Amino acid sequence: MSLWKPVETYRAIIFILDGIGDRPLPELNNKTPLQVAYKPNMDYIASHGMTGIMDPIEPGVRPGTDTGHLAIFGYEPYLYYPGRGPLEAVGAGARLNPGDVAIRCNLATAIEKNRKLIIIDRRAGRIKGEDAKLIIKTLNENIKEVEGVKVEFYPATAHRVALVLRGKGLSPKISNSDPGTAMENNPIKEVRPLDSSLEAAKTARIVNKIIVETYRLLKDHPVNKRRESEGKLPANVILTRGAGMIPLALKSFSERFNVRGYVIAEEDTIIGLARILGMETEVPDGATGDLETDTMSIARRVVEVYNNYNVDILFVQIKGPDIAGHDANYEGKIKIIEKIDKMIEYILNNTNQEKTVYVLTADHSTPCNVRDHTGDPVPIAFMGPQCRVDDIKSYDELNCAKGIIGRIRGVNLIPIVLNQMNRRLKFGE
Amino acid sequence: MSLWKPVETYRAIIFILDGIGDRPLPELNNKTPLQVAYKPNMDYIASHGMTGIMDPIEPGVRPGTDTGHLAIFGYEPYLYYPGRGPLEAVGAGARLNPGDVAIRCNLATAIEKNRKLIIIDRRAGRIKGEDAKLIIKTLNENIKEVEGVKVEFYPATAHRVALVLRGKGLSPKISNSDPGTAMENNPIKEVRPLDSSLEAAKTARIVNKIIVETYRLLKDHPVNKRRESEGKLPANVILTRGAGMIPLALKSFSERFNVRGYVIAEEDTIIGLARILGMETEVPDGATGDLETDTMSIARRVVEVYNNYNVDILFVQIKGPDIAGHDANYEGKIKIIEKIDKMIEYILNNTNQEKTVYVLTADHSTPCNVRDHTGDPVPIAFMGPQCRVDDIKSYDELNCAKGIIGRIRGVNLIPIVLNQMNRRLKFGE
Repeated sequence: MSLWKPVETYRAIIFILDGIGDRPLPELNNKTPLQVAYKPNMDYIASHGMTGIMDPIEPGVRPGTDTGHLAIFGYEPYLYYPGRGPLEAVGAGARLNPGDVAIRCNLATAIEKNRKLIIIDRRAGRIKGEDAKLIIKTLNENIKEVEGVKVEFYPATAHRVALVLRGKGLSPKISNSDPGTAMENNPIKEVRPLDSSLEAAKTARIVNKIIVETYRLLKDHPVNKRRESEGKLPANVILTRGAGMIPLALKSFSERFNVRGYVIAEEDTIIGLARILGMETEVPDGATGDLETDTMSIARRVVEVYNNYNVDILFVQIKGPDIAGHDANYEGKIKIIEKIDKMIEYILNNTNQEKTVYVLTADHSTPCNVRDHTGDPVPIAFMGPQCRVDDIKSYDELNCAKGIIGRIRGVNLIPIVLNQMNRRLKFGE
Repeated sequence: MSLWKPVETYRAIIFILDGIGDRPLPELNNKTPLQVAYKPNMDYIASHGMTGIMDPIEPGVRPGTDTGHLAIFGYEPYLYYPGRGPLEAVGAGARLNPGDVAIRCNLATAIEKNRKLIIIDRRAGRIKGEDAKLIIKTLNENIKEVEGVKVEFYPATAHRVALVLRGKGLSPKISNSDPGTAMENNPIKEVRPLDSSLEAAKTARIVNKIIVETYRLLKDHPVNKRRESEGKLPANVILTRGAGMIPLALKSFSERFNVRGYVIAEEDTIIGLARILGMETEVPDGATGDLETDTMSIARRVVEVYNNYNVDILFVQIKGPDIAGHDANYEGKIKIIEKIDKMIEYILNNTNQEKTVYVLTADHSTPCNVRDHTGDPVPIAFMGPQCRVDDIKSYDELNCAKGIIGRIRGVNLIPIVLNQMNRRLKFGE
C-alpha cells in the first residue's frame, strides 16, 4: 500500500507566554501557577502533540526579554544580540542596517566647572513632550555628519533619545559617558574604546565630539532659556550608554528561514527586535501588556491576521505572566494564564487545525518567589498535523520535562517548527 | 569487596537503519512502522541496554544521506561535509587527499554559435559504456596539468564524469558551468569564483581552461564522428557542477578515534564517504539497496567480517527503510524492518555478546507521509557488556524518547560507543 498524495506544507502559530515558567510556591502548596491554573486548551495542545522543556539561551542562563525572544526567533543570541542601543533606536522609529551603531541617550543638565561638564540632573528635570522634540530637532539640524559618519537623533520616551551613527568602520565597543545614577554631580565621563581596534577608537572619538557639540548647541537654546525662567532644569547635553551594533552577518528572518514571519506583541522591545529581523509587527487593539490586557481582542486580531494575511509563522507574545512574576503576584499569574487559555481556545476554534502547527513556549521563567527572570527551563508543546504525540497531558514545568522532545535550546525551536511545517530545506543529499 | 581484574575492551557493531524514523501514520492507526512491526531482536537490544533519541545533525535539521552518515561516523557535518563532487569522485574510484577539489561533470553536446558554446544536450544523448570510456581516455591523455595543478577524469555512471584537481592553493568556492536542466540551448556558463580569495580565482580559471580544452579535443574525436554518422549526439564538452574539497583538517577515522572502522553498506554514497574517511568498505553479496535485498546474505557476511577480521567498529547500513519511506510504502517499511530484525537475530546469535557493543541508529527519518528525509529525531539503542540498562522495552520513536540517553546529536554517537567499548582516550588527567 502506498500513501502517494501531494505532501502538504503547514503554517504555524507560536504562542510566546512571557515569563510563564515558575518555581514551586509554598503559597500554592509547592505547585507552580501553571500547575494550579485551569487551562484546558493549553493541555489540549500538550495532549495532542509532543512536549519538552527549553532553555531559551542555554541551561542555567537567565535570559532578558530581548535575548530570550532573539533565540525563539531562531538567532543564536551569543552571535546576534545587538545590545540595547539598537533595540531602543528601532523602538523610537529608526531603521537600522548591519554595521550601524546605535546608542541610548538621556537629555541631561550639566554645568561647566573648571572646564568640565558636571551633571547635575541625568534627566534634565524629566523633560518631555514638545520641549524635548524642539531640542532634538536642533541637534538633528546641526549635527549631521562627523568624520564622514552620518549622525541621527531619534526622540524616545520623555528625556530619552536614541543616537544612530551610520558609516563604515564603526564599532559598538565603546564605554558610556553616563556617570550613572549614583554619580550625580560628577563630570560626564570621556567615552573610551573598549578594545584596541581602530573602529572603536574612531567611534569613541566621534561620540565625544558629538557630546561636546550638543552642549555648545544647547546651552543657550531658547527652549532652555525659557525652562530656566520657569524654574525648570535645562536640557543642555546628552549622556550616552549601551552602544550596540546590528551584526554585519545578520540576515532577515525570511532570508534565513525562507518563510514569512509576523509578530503580534504587547511590548515595544519585541516589536523593535522583530523589525530588526525584518518581520512585520503590530501591537493589537486592547493589548496593554499587563494583567488587564484584552486577550479576547488579541485573539480576534490573531485569527484575522492568520486567516487573511499570507503569513507562514505567526508569533503571539503575551506579557502578563511576566508582569505577575515580577510583582510576586501568584494569584494574578494564575488568572492571566486562565485568560490566555481562553484566548487560545478562540484561536484553536477559528483557525484550520488540519493545516496548522501550534506551539506553546516562553522567553524565560519569571518565578513569583524570585520576582525576576531566572534560568529555569520553560515548558514547550507542539501540536500539528504530522507531529509525533507523546503521553503528556498537561502543559506545565514538570510534566513537559518528561515529553518526547526532551530538552532543547531556544535556537532549536524554529528549525523544529519548520520541520513540522514541511518547509525545512535539506542539508546534503 | 573489590572488583579488581583486568578491564576489558570491547568491539562494536553499529546498525544504521537508513531512514527508519517515521511520523504517526493515519493508515497505521497513528502509529509508526517501527511501532507496528514485529521486531523482537531490536526490542531485545533496547530491553537489555540504554535508549534515547538522536538528531543526526541538530534538532529540526533535515539530513541528507551523506551529512547524516558523516555525523554518525563521528564528524561534525558543519565542519567536514565535503560536498557532492568529492563523494561522486570517490564513488568513481578516485583516491582523494585533503586539499583536492573534485567536481561532478556531465559529458554533453555543444554547438559553436557566435564564438559561444551552446549546450543542446546536457547528457550527450545519454552516452555510456565504451564510447564514454574512450572519450574520457582522450581527456586523461591530453589534459594532465593546468597551471601546475594535476588534472584527472574518472568515468562514472553513463554520461557522468568526476573531475579531480590536485595541487596547492585550490578552492571549491566556484560556480557551476552547467546551465541546468531548464536551460538547454543556452551557452555554457563561465565558471566564476564565489569568494574573493586567490584560490577561488585560480580554480575557476583552471576549470574554464579545461572546459574549452575538452571541446577542442573532442569536437572532431573519432568516437563522435562515428556517433554522428549513426545519428547519435556527440560528447564534445564537459559541464561542471558541485565542486567540493576534502577539508584540509580531515583526519582519517582511525587517526581520529584510534580504532579500526569497517563499513558494510548498500549504497555507493556511503561507500565513497567511508573511503574518504579512510575506512575499509564493501557492498556485500545479495545487497540490492531496496526492499528485495538479501538481508540474510548480509547477515552472514557481517558475522564473517566481524569474527575473522581485526575490526573494532563494524558499521552495517541497510537502505530499505529509506526506500520504503520515499515510496510512501508503509507496508513495505514494516516488512523490511521485520527482515532486518531477522538479520540482527542471526548476528546476535553468531557474535560474542559478552565482548560486543550493539547499536541501533539511523541517519535520518524518512516518514511515509512526507516521502523524504525530515528533521525528526531517530530512536537509538545501545546494548553492551557494561552499558547502563533503562526500563525501555521497545525500539521505536516514542519509547526510546524516554530512555536514559535522552536526546543527543549524531556526532555524539561514536564517542558514546568508544566509551562503552572502554577504548576512549581521556581528555585531561
